[in-house]
Amino acid sequence: MSALSGVGVGRGIAAAKVLKMPEPLAPPGDAPLSAPVDEEAARVQGALQDVAAELLSRAAAAGGEAQQVLEAAALMAQDPAILDDVRTRMEGGANAERATWDAYGAFRDMLVSMGGYMAERATDLDDVAQRVVARLRGVAAPGVPASDEPFILVARDLAPADTATLDLEKTLALVTQDGGPTSHTAILARSKSLPAVVGVTGILAAVADGQRAIVDARTGSVELDPSDDAVAAAQTEREERLAAASAPITDGALADGTKVPLLANLGSPKEAAKAVELGAEGVGLFRTEFLFLDATSAPTVEAQTASYTELLQAFPGRKVVVRALDAGADKPLSFLNDAHEENPALGLRGIRALRASEQILRDQLAALANAQDATDAELWVMAPMIADVEETEYFVALGRELGLRTVGAMAEVPSIAVLADQVLEAADFVSIGTNDLTQYTMAADRQLGSVSSFQDPWHPAVLRLVKLLGEAGAATGKPVGVCGEAAADPALAVVLVGLGVTTLSMSPSALADVRAELLTVTLEEARERAARAITARSAAEARGLAAG
Amino acid sequence: MSALSGVGVGRGIAAAKVLKMPEPLAPPGDAPLSAPVDEEAARVQGALQDVAAELLSRAAAAGGEAQQVLEAAALMAQDPAILDDVRTRMEGGANAERATWDAYGAFRDMLVSMGGYMAERATDLDDVAQRVVARLRGVAAPGVPASDEPFILVARDLAPADTATLDLEKTLALVTQDGGPTSHTAILARSKSLPAVVGVTGILAAVADGQRAIVDARTGSVELDPSDDAVAAAQTEREERLAAASAPITDGALADGTKVPLLANLGSPKEAAKAVELGAEGVGLFRTEFLFLDATSAPTVEAQTASYTELLQAFPGRKVVVRALDAGADKPLSFLNDAHEENPALGLRGIRALRASEQILRDQLAALANAQDATDAELWVMAPMIADVEETEYFVALGRELGLRTVGAMAEVPSIAVLADQVLEAADFVSIGTNDLTQYTMAADRQLGSVSSFQDPWHPAVLRLVKLLGEAGAATGKPVGVCGEAAADPALAVVLVGLGVTTLSMSPSALADVRAELLTVTLEEARERAARAITARSAAEARGLAAG
Repeated sequence: MSALSGVGVGRGIAAAKVLKMPEPLAPPGDAPLSAPVDEEAARVQGALQDVAAELLSRAAAAGGEAQQVLEAAALMAQDPAILDDVRTRMEGGANAERATWDAYGAFRDMLVSMGGYMAERATDLDDVAQRVVARLRGVAAPGVPASDEPFILVARDLAPADTATLDLEKTLALVTQDGGPTSHTAILARSKSLPAVVGVTGILAAVADGQRAIVDARTGSVELDPSDDAVAAAQTEREERLAAASAPITDGALADGTKVPLLANLGSPKEAAKAVELGAEGVGLFRTEFLFLDATSAPTVEAQTASYTELLQAFPGRKVVVRALDAGADKPLSFLNDAHEENPALGLRGIRALRASEQILRDQLAALANAQDATDAELWVMAPMIADVEETEYFVALGRELGLRTVGAMAEVPSIAVLADQVLEAADFVSIGTNDLTQYTMAADRQLGSVSSFQDPWHPAVLRLVKLLGEAGAATGKPVGVCGEAAADPALAVVLVGLGVTTLSMSPSALADVRAELLTVTLEEARERAARAITARSAAEARGLAAG
Repeated sequence: MSALSGVGVGRGIAAAKVLKMPEPLAPPGDAPLSAPVDEEAARVQGALQDVAAELLSRAAAAGGEAQQVLEAAALMAQDPAILDDVRTRMEGGANAERATWDAYGAFRDMLVSMGGYMAERATDLDDVAQRVVARLRGVAAPGVPASDEPFILVARDLAPADTATLDLEKTLALVTQDGGPTSHTAILARSKSLPAVVGVTGILAAVADGQRAIVDARTGSVELDPSDDAVAAAQTEREERLAAASAPITDGALADGTKVPLLANLGSPKEAAKAVELGAEGVGLFRTEFLFLDATSAPTVEAQTASYTELLQAFPGRKVVVRALDAGADKPLSFLNDAHEENPALGLRGIRALRASEQILRDQLAALANAQDATDAELWVMAPMIADVEETEYFVALGRELGLRTVGAMAEVPSIAVLADQVLEAADFVSIGTNDLTQYTMAADRQLGSVSSFQDPWHPAVLRLVKLLGEAGAATGKPVGVCGEAAADPALAVVLVGLGVTTLSMSPSALADVRAELLTVTLEEARERAARAITARSAAEARGLAAG
């Protein structure tokens, strides 16, 4: 046996055989046609039919959104215009693979030039072209492999397109060679509660299809060719963890009984029912942008009141934290800020933009106050991008003037953490947006691939800023929550609590894992892990030190 | 008397009569021509001649670069093609002002369409057009007023074009209604050692031409209609301060003898002689970008060695801190990073870009090591955008491998300040770039007008991060310098020293004022000011608390 390591996502474990996701095909060469056109055309037709049949069969098995994606792809493989075009290209001398590749390429370019929804489908067409050419070439099709047996998927990285067709019944774990803890793969793993280890250098060369492995997300290890005993132990552990995660839903708490309310991040009132079903004790981040998108002016107070009331009614007696409109030049609303900015992430956004258009803010807060008074939920309202106590006092005063009872600030700008002592005096609460806080603290765009390694909330600089906020919360007796991606990482959730965070808010699908992990540690243990993590010199070292 | 207040720049004081800079003219209306064409043409010709004569007279008095700018403007007023065009437009029915305005407008558009140098001259043409129309209209010409007596200039804000023609012999102080401490006006004031108060709300409405005022940059106050005694006191103080600033050049030190080396920020070896003349004790920031601009590949090791050697030879036995190439997607070098980035300030830049193209970095460090070995200067080398100890160790190890003796990090990314204890263990020194550190700490683009109020190094969040770096420097016995705009602000320079900063580097023109200010306080007093400033709740409050 041998073991490789990377960054674990979640806390699960799995033992199974590996299936590697084939790499994208190399483009066909320019060799001349190798057989008569009719003969090659028949071979292409056969490949097209096979691919269509395979896609339809997978569509039927998949159901839901994946079914639609796969059925649309099957139609693309059966399009008679494609076969006509392939034949024409072969009559011009192109070989079968080249002719197929180019025919789909021309179709693709046409879709792209049409823009909008059609352009978005262009990637699906690439996938179909790759499948047909792979069949002509006699090699494995790229994309997510299919299997009748459970397997561990090993890939360079997963693209959003891959995940729609991933068979979650059969996929026990994900391992990627590239990508980090905020990659698409990691987000998928968290949302589906799949164990995953990402950034495992050399894994593609080290494993072969069918080789047995154990993936342990908690330790970030991938063990190859494990012993039967190790596999049995892993399977037992897996069952225990699954049982824990599907244990009866209880309120969030540590092993010693310390309460850590577990809340949901929502983007629409329609998501409330599912969150309640998964045990959300309230809402830790309700994003209000959906009300403002596609509008040429801000919605009326009446329309907003109706929407907020619908949300609050789903959580009687529970806490619901609503974030005021978060927009800037990169999510432009024509009535708020549609200026061209060189660096929109550092621009007129969040509270800055709202303050410049105060009537929009006043209307939103008035609508929230109406919903607060019309329901039994405990409404908290916070503003995005608050930088210091002056901005905090502005927002708190305006909220109070308009009748809100609990008004706070999001901590995303580094300055607010450095000045936490002042801000917690003025705000009723603070909620940390770890994604943006990490982006600004590391001065690295969270959306930019070339600096994605900086976007890791385990970085000790981020943890230390969280600690400043946690300490200020404790000193003033005010709540300090986390509503960024970090709260959904069970091991990090424990460290956050150890740093003084009092509530955790996340995608509802992540609640079970975090709930189970919290129950394994006492507050003292959480604090010890946190104390170790902030001495780390890197995010990876912080993970290791926290694990002990 | 009454007083208004704003943000003081520098430490000077001045008492004089006020001259207001006229606001730009409103465009002429469309009233029909009011007199025969010949009569109006003669009036326009007279105005053109008067403006040309006035500009030539100011050019002769100005000398230097301003002389050339003003002479070129005079030529634009005398251009016979303009008068012909004005006449044609009046024959078409336009009134004199309208015809003049439009004739210059057409000329302007032509220049703009030619691009390059000609396009840059278009603004000068606007200025001439405004002067001519003002004369036709019988109102004061826009732009910097001229006066035979010393005066205090009060303006909405100064544009770069205004400053070339500002008569520094007669201008004793600048006061602006808009703008902040990093506005063009503030930079001009610092570079010319002019007392200035910027951001004085309501000043344009409050004063009239000829009204007497005292401008005190240290307190940020503008006192209107002061008593004769107050004016006399201010004049005495002004003479004392001028005497102090023009005192014999000594090494930077506090009143108690504590050494605070005063260094120069340079962008080319050619600037070295002037810096030495103004008393720079060495170079605190040498920017190397000039060697790489306009090049399609990085310069050779030989070419770089020659340039660095020229620089170091100007400072025998002195410290010279060189910054490795600082480039990113917003200052693109095709051989380093010319990717499109959504937020280039948060992109692949500084050490991140150099690490991705390590050979470019190796060549630069090798050339610096050559220059170090060939001269008597004490060469220190630092990398931009270092985020943590891992990056510090990478850069220090590479520098040592290539033979450099002293290797450090720039502190611009907030994380490096939060992790200062770790970084100062690994680096030989740290130099704080306050402009970028402020930009990232406040998450506000330093170039973006709509968020310019955040770009203030007096903000207590920035001061607290400087303190973390200063404390880590003291704990490890390593130097911590400042090489951002903040070091050129005399009052802030004192606070920085109080926070633990050991050297200050600035534009050479700012050295005298800072040198004089440091001599007025002991280290204990500087620490007291710093201790007060970091308790502030805003930049303005920090300024006030530091002043006592």
